[in-house]
Amino acid sequence: MSDEVIYYIDDLEPGMTAVFGKTITEADILMFAGASGDTNPVHLDDEFASQTMFEGRIAHGLLVSSLISTVLGTRLPGPGCIYVSQTLKFMAPVRPGDTVKARVTLTEVDKEKKRVTCETNCTVGDRTVVAGEAKLMVQRRPAPE
Amino acid sequence: MSDEVIYYIDDLEPGMTAVFGKTITEADILMFAGASGDTNPVHLDDEFASQTMFEGRIAHGLLVSSLISTVLGTRLPGPGCIYVSQTLKFMAPVRPGDTVKARVTLTEVDKEKKRVTCETNCTVGDRTVVAGEAKLMVQRRPAPE
Amino acid sequence: MSDEVIYYIDDLEPGMTAVFGKTITEADILMFAGASGDTNPVHLDDEFASQTMFEGRIAHGLLVSSLISTVLGTRLPGPGCIYVSQTLKFMAPVRPGDTVKARVTLTEVDKEKKRVTCETNCTVGDRTVVAGEAKLMVQRRPAPE
Amino acid sequence: MSDEVIYYIDDLEPGMTAVFGKTITEADILMFAGASGDTNPVHLDDEFASQTMFEGRIAHGLLVSSLISTVLGTRLPGPGCIYVSQTLKFMAPVRPGDTVKARVTLTEVDKEKKRVTCETNCTVGDRTVVAGEAKLMVQRRPAPE
Repeated sequence: MSDEVIYYIDDLEPGMTAVFGKTITEADILMFAGASGDTNPVHLDDEFASQTMFEGRIAHGLLVSSLISTVLGTRLPGPGCIYVSQTLKFMAPVRPGDTVKARVTLTEVDKEKKRVTCETNCTVGDRTVVAGEAKLMVQRRPAPE
Repeated sequence: MSDEVIYYIDDLEPGMTAVFGKTITEADILMFAGASGDTNPVHLDDEFASQTMFEGRIAHGLLVSSLISTVLGTRLPGPGCIYVSQTLKFMAPVRPGDTVKARVTLTEVDKEKKRVTCETNCTVGDRTVVAGEAKLMVQRRPAPE
Repeated sequence: MSDEVIYYIDDLEPGMTAVFGKTITEADILMFAGASGDTNPVHLDDEFASQTMFEGRIAHGLLVSSLISTVLGTRLPGPGCIYVSQTLKFMAPVRPGDTVKARVTLTEVDKEKKRVTCETNCTVGDRTVVAGEAKLMVQRRPAPE
Repeated sequence: MSDEVIYYIDDLEPGMTAVFGKTITEADILMFAGASGDTNPVHLDDEFASQTMFEGRIAHGLLVSSLISTVLGTRLPGPGCIYVSQTLKFMAPVRPGDTVKARVTLTEVDKEKKRVTCETNCTVGDRTVVAGEAKLMVQRRPAPE
């Protein structure tokens, strides 16, 4: 397993940051609808969506937020960490074709309790679309054998 | 648009509840990995995952949580509601083949501010796997023309 | 199971109606091609399709028709009903970007035989694109225990 | 266009037949759910489905039927034909992992009106799961230039 691990709790410090970006396409929205079962017409039906305050179809909030999980699980802290909790505030809509950047910044590192707190923000250009905080458990570096 | 709307804020009362169930399959995990970019080996790599505390592959926490969005967006309050925020505590792992039930229960309905608060829980059998709370904005019933 | 059931045969009357709308995107056509194996170039190949009487790519007739199954299986009569038969007349082409509304209207309800007949129409704007009829079996409300 | 065309109406005779086979996987069911919006729990939720007469999850009837469109649009008569109508009787359930064979057999060929009628059957092993009939329009061979 250690081959895949990028950071142990011993390696982490507040202020460390990582980002993952992805363009949200029609196909992402469709797959997310299939995997979640969320067929809300604001995501799938142009005519319905154009009559809402969004004036057009938008991506699922949890699809956008899933990019946070990508940073946590693949970059910082990366494989082996355990996702304890996440808060999400949906600040602005994301439309098909928008490119979302999810950024994770460590704010607290408790090496004794192996706990990490992170600020987790998703942006499109200069606008924050999802703001939140994640808590994780990260294992200690194994003692040399 | 009103054809698709199930509930206006006027129709909602604390205690109303709705559920959506789905078996989490390998295909769901794959599609979620594709749409999110979250390729953490704990979700995709049997050998890696079997060496973690989970002793096998688990579904993404946000994939499991996405069933909450399905209830909110398609059943209660249903199409037309605006997702304001969500908190999520990941309590226990979900494995491929597990059937998750997401249940939404309204806890506060502020008809003046058009705001609703809900308890949002996901269970596998009797075990809570994700616990949390959602806040939404729900429109008023349009005045008759 | 009864949590998910919306209507029993006892609850149904001729004239009841429900609708589901969805914009047919490139991604839908691609996924339907993948799941069905239907790689007819009139759906996938702009150059071929532009030389047909349709003068451009069109969605699969059964993809458009699948929205009928969505209404039947999720809204009216909803979960628990059994799909007995369906007739489909393909009246006009649907192009990527068109928003299709599938409408189901109950025409006959035989409470003794637990059989329902429905008119099933798909429209784009004012134009009917698929016309047809479905027959279903719907269970009786369970006797109180 | 003629490069892709397999048969013109001039080439068709009653009795001609073609088949397409495909194993219906979890991924097909998930993609079909996304593209159609049909999240009926009999397709997606093991616990719900195990309490129905099917005693487990089944594929969408129109997903199974979509293999007919594959034969018509890619093999017999193939690219360039126009789908006029389809009838479908759902005779038996198809489960994830079942291999479906869709067979099309021409029953009437009206060269004057450029119309073809076909028997369209889907089978799993020896059991017919969908029976029906399709009508198509097929173009005449272009006159040599």
